[in-house]
Amino acid sequence: MTDTNDGIQAQRAKVGFQFREDMAPGLVLEMELKQIFHSTESQYQQIDVIDTYFGKTLITDGKTQSTQFDEYAYHESLVHPPLLNFCHINGRAPKRVFIGGGGELATAREVLRHPEVEKVVMVDLDKKVVDVSIQYLPEWGGEAVRSSPRLELIIGDAYEYLLNCEENFDVIILDISDPIEAGPGIMLYTKELYEHAATILSPNGVFVTQAGMADGIPPPHADAGQQDITCFVPIRNTLAQVFPCVSPYTQSVPSFGSDWGFVMAYSSKESSGSPEATAMEWISMDARSIDDLIQTYIKDGEKGLRMYDGITHRRMFALSKPLRTQMTSDTRIMTKDNPVFMY
Amino acid sequence: MTDTNDGIQAQRAKVGFQFREDMAPGLVLEMELKQIFHSTESQYQQIDVIDTYFGKTLITDGKTQSTQFDEYAYHESLVHPPLLNFCHINGRAPKRVFIGGGGELATAREVLRHPEVEKVVMVDLDKKVVDVSIQYLPEWGGEAVRSSPRLELIIGDAYEYLLNCEENFDVIILDISDPIEAGPGIMLYTKELYEHAATILSPNGVFVTQAGMADGIPPPHADAGQQDITCFVPIRNTLAQVFPCVSPYTQSVPSFGSDWGFVMAYSSKESSGSPEATAMEWISMDARSIDDLIQTYIKDGEKGLRMYDGITHRRMFALSKPLRTQMTSDTRIMTKDNPVFMY
Amino acid sequence: MTDTNDGIQAQRAKVGFQFREDMAPGLVLEMELKQIFHSTESQYQQIDVIDTYFGKTLITDGKTQSTQFDEYAYHESLVHPPLLNFCHINGRAPKRVFIGGGGELATAREVLRHPEVEKVVMVDLDKKVVDVSIQYLPEWGGEAVRSSPRLELIIGDAYEYLLNCEENFDVIILDISDPIEAGPGIMLYTKELYEHAATILSPNGVFVTQAGMADGIPPPHADAGQQDITCFVPIRNTLAQVFPCVSPYTQSVPSFGSDWGFVMAYSSKESSGSPEATAMEWISMDARSIDDLIQTYIKDGEKGLRMYDGITHRRMFALSKPLRTQMTSDTRIMTKDNPVFMY
Amino acid sequence: MTDTNDGIQAQRAKVGFQFREDMAPGLVLEMELKQIFHSTESQYQQIDVIDTYFGKTLITDGKTQSTQFDEYAYHESLVHPPLLNFCHINGRAPKRVFIGGGGELATAREVLRHPEVEKVVMVDLDKKVVDVSIQYLPEWGGEAVRSSPRLELIIGDAYEYLLNCEENFDVIILDISDPIEAGPGIMLYTKELYEHAATILSPNGVFVTQAGMADGIPPPHADAGQQDITCFVPIRNTLAQVFPCVSPYTQSVPSFGSDWGFVMAYSSKESSGSPEATAMEWISMDARSIDDLIQTYIKDGEKGLRMYDGITHRRMFALSKPLRTQMTSDTRIMTKDNPVFMY
Repeated sequence: MTDTNDGIQAQRAKVGFQFREDMAPGLVLEMELKQIFHSTESQYQQIDVIDTYFGKTLITDGKTQSTQFDEYAYHESLVHPPLLNFCHINGRAPKRVFIGGGGELATAREVLRHPEVEKVVMVDLDKKVVDVSIQYLPEWGGEAVRSSPRLELIIGDAYEYLLNCEENFDVIILDISDPIEAGPGIMLYTKELYEHAATILSPNGVFVTQAGMADGIPPPHADAGQQDITCFVPIRNTLAQVFPCVSPYTQSVPSFGSDWGFVMAYSSKESSGSPEATAMEWISMDARSIDDLIQTYIKDGEKGLRMYDGITHRRMFALSKPLRTQMTSDTRIMTKDNPVFMY
Repeated sequence: MTDTNDGIQAQRAKVGFQFREDMAPGLVLEMELKQIFHSTESQYQQIDVIDTYFGKTLITDGKTQSTQFDEYAYHESLVHPPLLNFCHINGRAPKRVFIGGGGELATAREVLRHPEVEKVVMVDLDKKVVDVSIQYLPEWGGEAVRSSPRLELIIGDAYEYLLNCEENFDVIILDISDPIEAGPGIMLYTKELYEHAATILSPNGVFVTQAGMADGIPPPHADAGQQDITCFVPIRNTLAQVFPCVSPYTQSVPSFGSDWGFVMAYSSKESSGSPEATAMEWISMDARSIDDLIQTYIKDGEKGLRMYDGITHRRMFALSKPLRTQMTSDTRIMTKDNPVFMY
Repeated sequence: MTDTNDGIQAQRAKVGFQFREDMAPGLVLEMELKQIFHSTESQYQQIDVIDTYFGKTLITDGKTQSTQFDEYAYHESLVHPPLLNFCHINGRAPKRVFIGGGGELATAREVLRHPEVEKVVMVDLDKKVVDVSIQYLPEWGGEAVRSSPRLELIIGDAYEYLLNCEENFDVIILDISDPIEAGPGIMLYTKELYEHAATILSPNGVFVTQAGMADGIPPPHADAGQQDITCFVPIRNTLAQVFPCVSPYTQSVPSFGSDWGFVMAYSSKESSGSPEATAMEWISMDARSIDDLIQTYIKDGEKGLRMYDGITHRRMFALSKPLRTQMTSDTRIMTKDNPVFMY
Repeated sequence: MTDTNDGIQAQRAKVGFQFREDMAPGLVLEMELKQIFHSTESQYQQIDVIDTYFGKTLITDGKTQSTQFDEYAYHESLVHPPLLNFCHINGRAPKRVFIGGGGELATAREVLRHPEVEKVVMVDLDKKVVDVSIQYLPEWGGEAVRSSPRLELIIGDAYEYLLNCEENFDVIILDISDPIEAGPGIMLYTKELYEHAATILSPNGVFVTQAGMADGIPPPHADAGQQDITCFVPIRNTLAQVFPCVSPYTQSVPSFGSDWGFVMAYSSKESSGSPEATAMEWISMDARSIDDLIQTYIKDGEKGLRMYDGITHRRMFALSKPLRTQMTSDTRIMTKDNPVFMY
């Protein structure tokens, strides 16, 4: 569609173009389709860049990947807690960071805000997502990130890469699709993968994965067979079988229709006491300490970030009571042979 | 529709009944309409009780009021922070509580969990909402709440009632519709009303109002005239002109499609220092102190509550950075002559 | 929902209840759901009576069966052409009429307008459809039709009934669901059934079946594999293998979203010439002759009918060019072993 | 979007792009938006060329103008009856034809099938519609029609042009938007315009206008104030006040969701008897005579046409009984001061 200006914006209201997205069984979000910037098909998926209420939006196979409205809420939450936790534990910045997925480049953009990171290895399956993002979503990172000498971009299967990888990383970040049936990323949510990831993390390295919807509120029709469609707790359970410390956290991402989950996992700090104490130390960091870490380790400090800071940290790591309740009752583990699927 | 069982649930999928709700301009949430339990029309509005993904749901004039899925997230957040803050400030439970609106009875249900509350005066315009809630939403409170000797239910205009009221209340709770143009409740969001409310609060009384959508994320098309459709910050600003202490807070309510805002306001505690210090003391209460307050002042203590506890408190009062950023730039005040409208 | 008055009708606009019906692949008709009069589930299907733009509507398993707006367009077209053609061929009214399906009772209503019909045997699978129609759709026929001494209503499988039937009928009417995959009526659209039906028709008897969508316009994406979703021509082809005369015809039924097809089949009139001539004689009857037949054989004559008369007859039997074109190219036959399915 | 091939077609199903069109109050047709070929904005309207179930489709301001599926049904019905009626009345082909509107060029395409037409004057307001149609809808006529030496295309207001026109035309065709409130074409549906048109018609000239939805079925909620949203009968009434002969007719155009109306008007043939007889003569022409006219006057004869022929003619001019019933009761006239609006 034309990519010009306000007048058209107004006119658009007259044209009933819509983007309908399934959010859950019996729940559809219908967004006015203000513009289609680009549509293409890769070897793996349909890729669309559109404009809706949430602004510019990347869609693959009909699922919103991220939006101008709140992509930073997601990407800052995925990246800075693990990197700054590494700084806190080790008293130094991470040097080598791995990103599985991340084709939009925004995850790399956030990692590269850490000037002491020397090398980012990013492995994404779909070159077309990267190319489309560079051309149509420059605010996500674009050419500036792509051409960073610190970034090594590999087009390939992150799961295969990790299994065959013999190098170590200070931080491993999995920025991948939700574990849906027949989805390409399902293997990246298994105990087997986590076990291998643990072997290639630096001694006090930190691992993080996005973990899907996470509001913790039980489905109201559970008695009538309504399925829980989240994987947050199973992902956290599975990581807890592999790593001594696990810190689940959440962040509101309105365009995803829900609080969104992340799970960080890491080895105990040698100097400290129990893993629980280590995890708790991070969770309950006071706001000022987080702000100090940001000031120390991130380029432009707090000015660079729009979502994450000391107070937001408190919010992210203070899980709601229903989510904590769910964590005490849902004991599912995700393995190659017994995967768990989101809707 | 039939109100029987699972079989029908399954069949239902074949019938394309839907409930479509406007969430924002260009944003519609379409929910499978599994059942209509009741539909009626009062003098003021259309009232429907239906079943959707979010379970049993009360709808007035096409807007979701609350759902089985997460009504407790809203009602506990509206009630317990102000009541427990009163306890904290005064070292005793509130005795007299006023509820403006609240026809679903769930707000009264939460207030009545405080055994030392002697009198709840609730003023709602629409008797039919109360009757429908008693019959079709017993989980919200129902006859048990309605017939409590501690509850005085007055059918009438909460605004008029407050203006003419000469009694004092320890806590005033406004559980009213969002301030939309031509909405009945718009006067309950004005500086003039807040000024009057301040005069009928007990010396160290606490005032709270629901305050609509509150994710704080600026609309992506602001440059092209996309309107901010929230009122959270203007409500907080207006209360801050009247009360020395103001504590805004938010809670995720998924069926409302967003983080939801509340603003609490109160006088400084005499013994303490500045109003800012008083507000900050509450905001930064440690989790254990909140849990102690719950244990002391609420019937069945933490077992009675599903959402609010010490850790959830941390989450609710740690506002996200975008919301705090918005609070520094949006200076709108709501008065009779210059109201501010939500979408 | 309340079944009262206009005021509510107006209010309803505020409530986003909708009925969405799949019309074809990628084509949904969304109707404001003004009211649900009744919902129930039978052994065979979900049954709903609702109110939409098309007025009172019977829905089974999410598919519109007929609406207040245009049910008479469908039912008059199904019944009067075969009955009056029988009169025309035989010089007397039919005495015994069979209806397969017809649970709404409106087909029987139209048959009973013919005072000389002595016996109508109607076989429908689903007693609940009949009961719901009597209670909620009295305009369709209701108790007046149900209690007619001329009507024998049998709850059962019309296919089985016909196969085992040894009595003769002057007219056989199949008022059954479209031939969709896994639908109950698929066997009623086979050459085998038609062959048997031919054996129990009176010597100059007439057979008619509804035949689904029939606009004849080829799907625009046929090159890209877009399927023709109609069965009208295959049904006509199949009947033409069994009966010497076949007269396909169509009638616009707006709530079905298309011109709707019917196929009449009958033996040649002994006295006349070729079957083609017999069929053509009926098709090209002048308007006055049809009006005369109506006046002679139908109670209240033309006043009783809202759709069918001499001029409408011309319209119904003058098939559009695309439909005639399709009839020259689509040679599919429907048999037990090789059924053809509609969308 | 990409304009390549089948694979994408299939993928598309995964992406929930939809085009929603209001058909009537409380009635929305939702079509899968398979592709957007072009979107632009002219001085007058938003113009989109998309692909849906109905194939390639031209949309202006959110309303379907015509589709690959059935544009010929509309355009052949608009053009050939008046031109062939002129031939029939005058014993010769028309020489000069006027088209008001017609920017898609398909109306001119059909007129140019008549080799003896020497001059087609076409006046359309919106050059962009013409340009977009040439580029994206070549099947509608495109450059071949645009560059015909017999076509004079004038960008301007057809109403003004006609009022100031002093030349005569054998046939005048109005292919304009429906008479909706605030629509540009409302003046082209007034008695005043028709009176002027009559003065510039050749002595035995023929006038035709498209006339909107025309199923004739009364709205089921008429008692509750449900409005008749058609203008077919008022247009016919108004023409009947100006012209001695008026022939209304209809054609099913599925993508318009209904039978569609046209009204032809002309002077009595001098040699014949009453105007009624003249009109009736045309309406009841036998199929062979129409086929002969087609063979005589249209290039490639019947092979050139996909919808109109002798049998389709019978169908088009045999109005359904409800429509004829409506014509006896609806006496509205459309004038400058008292226009009538469609939905």
